Amino acid sequence: MRKLLVIGIGTGNPEHVTLQAVRALNAANAIFLIDKGDAKAELLRIRREICERFIEGEPPRFVEASDPERDRSPADYGVAVDDWHAARAELYETLIETNLGEGESGAFLVWGDPSLYDSTLRIIARIRARGRLAFDCEVIPGITSVQALAAGHQIPLNGIGEPVTITTGRRLAQDLSADGATVVMLDGKVDFDGLDPDLTIQWGAYLGTADELLVSGRLGDVAELIRTTRREARVRHGWIMDIYRLSRPAT
Amino acid sequence: MRKLLVIGIGTGNPEHVTLQAVRALNAANAIFLIDKGDAKAELLRIRREICERFIEGEPPRFVEASDPERDRSPADYGVAVDDWHAARAELYETLIETNLGEGESGAFLVWGDPSLYDSTLRIIARIRARGRLAFDCEVIPGITSVQALAAGHQIPLNGIGEPVTITTGRRLAQDLSADGATVVMLDGKVDFDGLDPDLTIQWGAYLGTADELLVSGRLGDVAELIRTTRREARVRHGWIMDIYRLSRPAT
Repeated sequence: MRKLLVIGIGTGNPEHVTLQAVRALNAANAIFLIDKGDAKAELLRIRREICERFIEGEPPRFVEASDPERDRSPADYGVAVDDWHAARAELYETLIETNLGEGESGAFLVWGDPSLYDSTLRIIARIRARGRLAFDCEVIPGITSVQALAAGHQIPLNGIGEPVTITTGRRLAQDLSADGATVVMLDGKVDFDGLDPDLTIQWGAYLGTADELLVSGRLGDVAELIRTTRREARVRHGWIMDIYRLSRPAT
Repeated sequence: MRKLLVIGIGTGNPEHVTLQAVRALNAANAIFLIDKGDAKAELLRIRREICERFIEGEPPRFVEASDPERDRSPADYGVAVDDWHAARAELYETLIETNLGEGESGAFLVWGDPSLYDSTLRIIARIRARGRLAFDCEVIPGITSVQALAAGHQIPLNGIGEPVTITTGRRLAQDLSADGATVVMLDGKVDFDGLDPDLTIQWGAYLGTADELLVSGRLGDVAELIRTTRREARVRHGWIMDIYRLSRPAT
């Protein structure tokens, strides 16, 4: 039986890797590095570096591939994602069948944790549902940028006894928690349009790395600083990964 | 300057510890093991085991203490928590001052991640605000039971493009997400009272350990199985730590 290892590798700090992830990396005969189209050279380099740093003995086979193109401004978001996942399931199935012998293990490296805004597990469920390829699967959790943000600011995510909502930039207006905290991932704009300036914000980018940027304060006071910092950092690095937490001021 | 290390150690699987946590454990001159009153011998044993397994060379000093008693059925929840935190800040300050010399590092081990339903960072902020003791602080994120639940069930936490709300048993009725997923922690009852039987549930206990229990399905179909499994496991182990995710069936 083939085995797939879906490994959360944290957010760029190699020390965020768990011992379970190190063991899994060393157990893999092949490592699949999928370029998501928007993956920059630096992101590929970090994944390579994590592998080189932690894999001892005979190196695994590296299998690089590019994700199918995704319709970025579709008429129907749900249908577009479904089509994209179907195309990826076909690609991944072929990659697994071609590059993994019976009894071998293959690893997919996932930024952060496979459970949060990542579709690798959905793709694998699709391949399983197609019923052509039999395999075992093991999921290895990793540190997310949500946790790296909290660690950087040295804050709890939740208020005392209160909930935390994790959402995306696309859904922020709809999902902003009325009485809890909200963590916003995957916000391509970060314009804070229409948000209450009295909210408290903790913002971070390149979290857990030497390039980490942190800004916090009353949204109305720091919004412009965050936008400027973000714009400049993006030009400097050629890419940015950032995240922020919003909450009502404590009463 | 003294330094406090607030280390997330995961949910009981020693392999969930990150390399950053291992480094921090080895940098600590003293390790504070605070018994929260409800901590069972097994939980203390797991923390000890993690320390013994990962600390090389000269062992640190272990400082054991018991948290002040907490009013479990207070007239005013907010006031009771505030009083309790104040008492803990005093205790922790004394522990740090007594057991840590200038220039030394002391570690607080936190189950899961210091950012989620843990008050260590709030206590440390209180000590800082008192202004009697100067210290640096570093937060080391750890794998939470939320992630271990998702890894055990091999599922993403969020629906495609949808939010995830993390809340407690106490607030579930209020916080259940209408169109996203809800993860429920710290539910002492787990009776599912008043919940729609058509919700999908993924439940897990002792996650990431050899004793891991997983049940999933339509809530109406598996609620009784979860209650029975939970009751029996609790008797067998003398304690239980469990968590579950609820979501609307995919449309």
